[in-house]
Amino acid sequence: MDKQTVKSVAWENGTLYLLDQTQLPTDVVVEEQQSVKQVWDSIKKLKVRGAPAIGVAGAYGLAVAMRDKISLDRESFLAEMQDNASYLDSSRPTAVNLSWALNRVVKTVRAHSAKSGRELYDVLVAEAEAIHAEDVELCRRIGEHGVSLISDGMGILTHCNAGRLATSDYGTATAPMYLAHERGVSFTVYSDESRPLLQGSRLTAWELQAAGVDVYTITDNMAAAMMQQGLINIVIVGTDRVAANGDVANKIGTLGVAILASYFKIPFYVATPFSTIDLATTSGSQIVIEERGEDEVTHFGMRRTAPEGIKVRNPAFDVTPNALVTGFITDRGIIRPPYRDTLKAAFGN
Amino acid sequence: MDKQTVKSVAWENGTLYLLDQTQLPTDVVVEEQQSVKQVWDSIKKLKVRGAPAIGVAGAYGLAVAMRDKISLDRESFLAEMQDNASYLDSSRPTAVNLSWALNRVVKTVRAHSAKSGRELYDVLVAEAEAIHAEDVELCRRIGEHGVSLISDGMGILTHCNAGRLATSDYGTATAPMYLAHERGVSFTVYSDESRPLLQGSRLTAWELQAAGVDVYTITDNMAAAMMQQGLINIVIVGTDRVAANGDVANKIGTLGVAILASYFKIPFYVATPFSTIDLATTSGSQIVIEERGEDEVTHFGMRRTAPEGIKVRNPAFDVTPNALVTGFITDRGIIRPPYRDTLKAAFGN
Repeated sequence: MDKQTVKSVAWENGTLYLLDQTQLPTDVVVEEQQSVKQVWDSIKKLKVRGAPAIGVAGAYGLAVAMRDKISLDRESFLAEMQDNASYLDSSRPTAVNLSWALNRVVKTVRAHSAKSGRELYDVLVAEAEAIHAEDVELCRRIGEHGVSLISDGMGILTHCNAGRLATSDYGTATAPMYLAHERGVSFTVYSDESRPLLQGSRLTAWELQAAGVDVYTITDNMAAAMMQQGLINIVIVGTDRVAANGDVANKIGTLGVAILASYFKIPFYVATPFSTIDLATTSGSQIVIEERGEDEVTHFGMRRTAPEGIKVRNPAFDVTPNALVTGFITDRGIIRPPYRDTLKAAFGN
Repeated sequence: MDKQTVKSVAWENGTLYLLDQTQLPTDVVVEEQQSVKQVWDSIKKLKVRGAPAIGVAGAYGLAVAMRDKISLDRESFLAEMQDNASYLDSSRPTAVNLSWALNRVVKTVRAHSAKSGRELYDVLVAEAEAIHAEDVELCRRIGEHGVSLISDGMGILTHCNAGRLATSDYGTATAPMYLAHERGVSFTVYSDESRPLLQGSRLTAWELQAAGVDVYTITDNMAAAMMQQGLINIVIVGTDRVAANGDVANKIGTLGVAILASYFKIPFYVATPFSTIDLATTSGSQIVIEERGEDEVTHFGMRRTAPEGIKVRNPAFDVTPNALVTGFITDRGIIRPPYRDTLKAAFGN
């Protein structure tokens, strides 16, 4: 398998394929999704992760759920589709893209006049494919808007993985980096390993290295020292949800990076597809933070690294207050403070 | 082995025993030190770690080196001792206690009038035992001075391990916690796991849990979220070296914690035996930071967690500027800014 071209999500001849990212960086394994239950597990177990990729996988997952329901009449098909959409939506509580994509597909299918399950299924698949194609285009646009922020000799810190593996092609946080690299700009990326699940060292370092970008892996607690040494000129991260006031929910550790960047006066940018901005969420305090299993913290792989019976906290995300965000790099351009006005205005476009 | 009473360093009937802390929290293994080379390796490989414990182990290590040299005459004995002291001193560059303890033993032995290697060896051992006994007393005093900082219901964040395992009995950062616990104060400790070597989850969580203290393990990048949630009222860490101006060298990640504490207006205290304050180092910029092997970052235990050939940074320590330090909890009392004056004054005592 060519690790430069393998996709996190692929739909070919009515079949959904997901790259099992939990096996990176050592093994590149693509799994055919046989059932909606398997898709639910793949999302829950982070085999597919990253807000945009989860949305695309969820939309195709609905197609997987309905492909053997095409003999149903319209009403039964729509009822079945609704049940499966709710089921898929329950796999990850925080990523808004999942509900967004599922709702969009459901709405489009309902709005279509087709009488037969067969026709409705085709509408469903077409809409899932549209969401996928739009995500590819969104990422490219994010790159186009953000590429000017990167110049020769820069050091860039990123956290977790908001890259090609988290989305389509260019990724979000990585899109400006990939475009800058294509255009011959020479820069260095410092990738936080991002405990507990190491998306930074396993995924971001892997995909940037595969693309030929100069990249270092560091543990999360080295970011401050790298900044103090003057090695970091800009921070670019992704996000799982942006509230109407610009508060940012992203992988645990993002808040700390934002505070460090502020202390060292380093610009802190959040790259995000527009669909991740949720005007219905007025502030970060309303965002439900998923608390994940203890074993992720007490173990590393199969090895126990904390004593038996130790108590653990394991919030999967944190919320960075809008005051720490220099700007949002979106497919509609870079959005700057005051976010309560500028985010709403961008929707007005 | 009773994990509540096992010591990191023990000297019994002319034999040095070191607890292999790299095997915690799953295995409690105490190794008899057969040779000075073995002691050098034990320090280098972090089987014994923590500034005070390294100093005590180094002093006893010199005894291990010289115990079969007692037939030498005074001049040959002193020459051999000097060579072995320099050799042991080369095992860890950053911890000032190691050179401090070795120099103290060498100086005391040289100052003694004894003619025979036998007598000089007895002087050497007596001085090493004195250093050990003083460390026990120092830690207790640090606890006495710091215990008033801890009150009922508090949340305490600590980083790495400056505990009983890093020193003798009460530890340094943990001394106020152990005394408060003995006196019935109820508080909760949040222990950063402290990548790459996990001294926090493997050692601090282990020893606090063994003592019955309420303790949570968190990944390093969760500290900001815990502070944001109002769970942390005070930060107490140890240090490997304090410069004359109050700059603090400590385990990588300490700088980040100090910056977060400052952002959330949480007091940040450094617990330290007096011997760790180095007036000869005028500021943190003069402190040599050890850069350790790449495998610590690219692997977890035996498992590779970053791609083959990835570039890595792995500084073992960082330097926290004095402006971020609320106070030093020492065996001579709590020292507060301005440190250029107050640290020197404390030495004047």
